[in-house]
Amino acid sequence: MKVEILITESPLHLAPATVPGCGAVARFDGIVRDIEDGKKIGGLYYEAYAPMAEKTMLDILTGLGRIHPFNFARVHHRIGFVPVGEAAISMDIYTKHRAEAFAVLQAFMDRLKTDVPIWKRSSP
Amino acid sequence: MKVEILITESPLHLAPATVPGCGAVARFDGIVRDIEDGKKIGGLYYEAYAPMAEKTMLDILTGLGRIHPFNFARVHHRIGFVPVGEAAISMDIYTKHRAEAFAVLQAFMDRLKTDVPIWKRSSP
Repeated sequence: MKVEILITESPLHLAPATVPGCGAVARFDGIVRDIEDGKKIGGLYYEAYAPMAEKTMLDILTGLGRIHPFNFARVHHRIGFVPVGEAAISMDIYTKHRAEAFAVLQAFMDRLKTDVPIWKRSSP
Repeated sequence: MKVEILITESPLHLAPATVPGCGAVARFDGIVRDIEDGKKIGGLYYEAYAPMAEKTMLDILTGLGRIHPFNFARVHHRIGFVPVGEAAISMDIYTKHRAEAFAVLQAFMDRLKTDVPIWKRSSP
């Protein structure tokens, strides 16, 4: 069970990995939309308390992996200004079967919003 | 709501699309594993009744889209010999919010196995 966490100010490029023995790859990209709270925006500005955010994401993934075993999981989160149409988060997961992949992806995204110290504010 | 279905004998390359207004992109790749029914294999051989498989996949996606609206969904399925480590199916979906994306992806994959006339047999 391998985990890769990245918090970066650069645009995200999560290139597909080759993971022997895996039969399922699931991926999620969260894209900045042009409407936030009913207002037209130019992008979102993300701030993170990086060391704690990385540790929390690692803990969440490790905990989920005990319930839904996976071979490899990656979470890349962008901070700073993210323009409309670009990804703020890219995540993928490599498992033997697809049920575990979907389970981890969804559970992680739910917990990201509530547990991880990353904040956003809209930008015109 | 746009749908793209492809059944092909070529290796799959589902390049990311740009879909205005979408905030979530979810993707699933089903990869051929080196073990099938407990035996080591070199690949799987897929056969399809293509016109009916395409129509059925389109119907399933359209039906799911009525319950979980999406902007764009693609399903690419490979037929013929697919070697271990390569994708037999690549699917992605573009939605406003992530709940719909995960819902359609999972429901489609469940129904693919039961409703779509695509068969596989292992190959040494």
